[in-house]
Amino acid sequence: MSAGVEGLDETHDPARRSWVPGASEHPEFPVQNLPFGVFSVRGRQPRAGVAIGEFIVDLRGVSAAGLLSGEAEAAVEAAGGGSLSEMLELGAAPRRALRRRLSELLSDNAFSDRIGPLLHPAAECTLHLPCAIGDYTDFYAGIHHATNVGRQFRPEGPLLPNYKHIPIAYHGRSSSIRPSGMPVRRPLGQMKPPDNAPPVFAPCRRLDYELELGIWIGVGNELGEPIPIGQAEGHIAGYSLLNDWSARDIQAWEYRPLGPFLAKNFLTTVSCWIVTPEALAPFRIPQAQRPEGDPAPLAYLSDAEDQARGALDLHLEVLLRTGRMRAQGRLPHRVALSNARHMYWTVAQMVAHHASGGCNLRPGDLFGSGTISGPDEGSGGSMLESTLGGARPIVLPGGEERRFLDDGDEVFLRAYARRPGFASIGFGECRGVIEAARAVR
Amino acid sequence: MSAGVEGLDETHDPARRSWVPGASEHPEFPVQNLPFGVFSVRGRQPRAGVAIGEFIVDLRGVSAAGLLSGEAEAAVEAAGGGSLSEMLELGAAPRRALRRRLSELLSDNAFSDRIGPLLHPAAECTLHLPCAIGDYTDFYAGIHHATNVGRQFRPEGPLLPNYKHIPIAYHGRSSSIRPSGMPVRRPLGQMKPPDNAPPVFAPCRRLDYELELGIWIGVGNELGEPIPIGQAEGHIAGYSLLNDWSARDIQAWEYRPLGPFLAKNFLTTVSCWIVTPEALAPFRIPQAQRPEGDPAPLAYLSDAEDQARGALDLHLEVLLRTGRMRAQGRLPHRVALSNARHMYWTVAQMVAHHASGGCNLRPGDLFGSGTISGPDEGSGGSMLESTLGGARPIVLPGGEERRFLDDGDEVFLRAYARRPGFASIGFGECRGVIEAARAVR
Repeated sequence: MSAGVEGLDETHDPARRSWVPGASEHPEFPVQNLPFGVFSVRGRQPRAGVAIGEFIVDLRGVSAAGLLSGEAEAAVEAAGGGSLSEMLELGAAPRRALRRRLSELLSDNAFSDRIGPLLHPAAECTLHLPCAIGDYTDFYAGIHHATNVGRQFRPEGPLLPNYKHIPIAYHGRSSSIRPSGMPVRRPLGQMKPPDNAPPVFAPCRRLDYELELGIWIGVGNELGEPIPIGQAEGHIAGYSLLNDWSARDIQAWEYRPLGPFLAKNFLTTVSCWIVTPEALAPFRIPQAQRPEGDPAPLAYLSDAEDQARGALDLHLEVLLRTGRMRAQGRLPHRVALSNARHMYWTVAQMVAHHASGGCNLRPGDLFGSGTISGPDEGSGGSMLESTLGGARPIVLPGGEERRFLDDGDEVFLRAYARRPGFASIGFGECRGVIEAARAVR
Repeated sequence: MSAGVEGLDETHDPARRSWVPGASEHPEFPVQNLPFGVFSVRGRQPRAGVAIGEFIVDLRGVSAAGLLSGEAEAAVEAAGGGSLSEMLELGAAPRRALRRRLSELLSDNAFSDRIGPLLHPAAECTLHLPCAIGDYTDFYAGIHHATNVGRQFRPEGPLLPNYKHIPIAYHGRSSSIRPSGMPVRRPLGQMKPPDNAPPVFAPCRRLDYELELGIWIGVGNELGEPIPIGQAEGHIAGYSLLNDWSARDIQAWEYRPLGPFLAKNFLTTVSCWIVTPEALAPFRIPQAQRPEGDPAPLAYLSDAEDQARGALDLHLEVLLRTGRMRAQGRLPHRVALSNARHMYWTVAQMVAHHASGGCNLRPGDLFGSGTISGPDEGSGGSMLESTLGGARPIVLPGGEERRFLDDGDEVFLRAYARRPGFASIGFGECRGVIEAARAVR
């Protein structure tokens, strides 16, 4: 294992190989990842599982086989009722204990006889949301996104004065968060044509994706009890991908003065696996130095350890495939390549800020990072950015152009972590295909 | 009963009197009201109840005594686990059946022997939130509030161009909604002093109340399936009072571009009884004609029956008592008198708009109406309005002045419906006292 990376143990050893067929070569789910989720098989009750290669291990089964003990067993016992919230609520120690034990069980051949029967081919399983989500909060931590979008409205001063002082966020809608694969029905909504034309109620014409990281809260806090920045990391249970589908024309007309509402709440897609902070430990990099002249964070957002622990070096991609490309047998085409390191705020800063006024977080709460765009051409996490508000279309293989999403378009988000000396890990699928709007009644 | 009011039956008969001592003279909970809630007695499990005078009737007890049947019985059976969500999900018919039967049972002396033992003195009970709230949405339907607040920022055009076209709303925080009586700890937060001074993290200095109506959703809708305006009324389970406590200095610095966040999510107080649409049926008045020149609502927000059913004629008050007034034995002093008729949008329009893009509502979801101010002096539903942003203090009995809330101040919201020929009804308590902020760490 590489020296100089904190929090590493044998679960990160790239030489550790799983006896599960194909797992060690799997680009996303080798034994070094072990993300948690909820799955069901052929209509049976959803239950807790862990991904290994192209398989899912039934965690209750592992426990029932007597292969767990202590904290690891307690973690699995808490994961009932088709939601991992109560397992995540236990905090980091049981999660780590379970991870260490699963790493052993899935890499030591001696256990293959007993665990083999508990493996379900992922292709035969349905994945569900991993938690019953209480509240969903969407941040705005992608500074290049905030700048790119701001530039379209305020060329002379794209970033608002509060941006570098506050991890800006707003409350989103939890009821309409769905697992990867759920079709995205194009929303109807009010929008305002230019000039003096009255508003109309019609299908959205500027439908967009947003490339975000989802952050799952494990341990909560009591109402009125802030979370000190030095303890914030301990409240993070893990990460997913999140597509914050956005209706730009509805948003432009509705958002003043209280922020986005129907432009965002018709659907939010998340990838179903919770990738743990432990799995991502090798892929932390020092938080980028703030550029000369940027303000230092206020004390409640300032922690040397958090800065040292740093950002996530996580490659993020958006891929697009139109209905015609699908019919032609074409693969999805990458339309954006970005990286989670472009977040201006650490996730710990988001947690500390959220609770700083006393707001209580609950296990299973979900944060969105905000759209994570990079500084370069081709790194825009939304079409609003990559097409400059629809002015410059994306050209796709086969010659089709897109300014915003058409019906039949399929959007894939992808995340993967790679670093010399470590096994690569990924996040699984975060996908949605656009369906035609309902008829206006 | 008065002619010309729809939806009335014997439960509204002002001549109907309850055998429960004092109930018929009760200013809020005579037998014509019968609001539903969740209560507990001396640490026992929370359960469903109905308010009658100074007592609470245990609904499961009534059912167990064999006094209910059919839909009324089914409604009570659904009200388990300390939440009425599943009862409200059944919709209007079982709720009405239960109301009719309770009205009979509580007014016919023949039942006093069997129901008497199921009465609990309200003073010995703890009231809880009536539902497990999934999502909370705060509207902005008080047009005088929107105008008053807008005037402080944009004297030349207080109302934004979208206001008369869209029932403006934003998502709020559900985790921090608490029942009446929960103390309000003054939040810490970031705020920006004037001029070039850097932002500070400190106790809020402009703490405010907001006088709102809470709206409980009963029947939900599927994701992607809008609620036609003609059916929207059927999704409303009832009403409470709601105090959307607001930190104005935090709000001013954080709200651009995504809306209020920490300024609002440190606590929201609701009154615990759900006053049903049936109880309020006598107090509907035609929706005010929109002033000449105002746009007609778009078709998806337009329904002749909804307009005819109209607004709620509900008196709304804010009362304030400082710590010194309490020590001097003074009563709370009324600082605002308003009326729910000042909402620019009907609740049905809010419901239809919320679901118009496909967003799914769930049973137990809560809406806030937005601050309901009147057009006149003394009708401002927030201190921001009644003190003109702190410029003109409120003078209280005993000579104290308030520009915003001080520690120890106690705020009461009150709602009551009165109309000749009908029994008056009220909403119960919506109260909170301000506690000092935590020390900044």
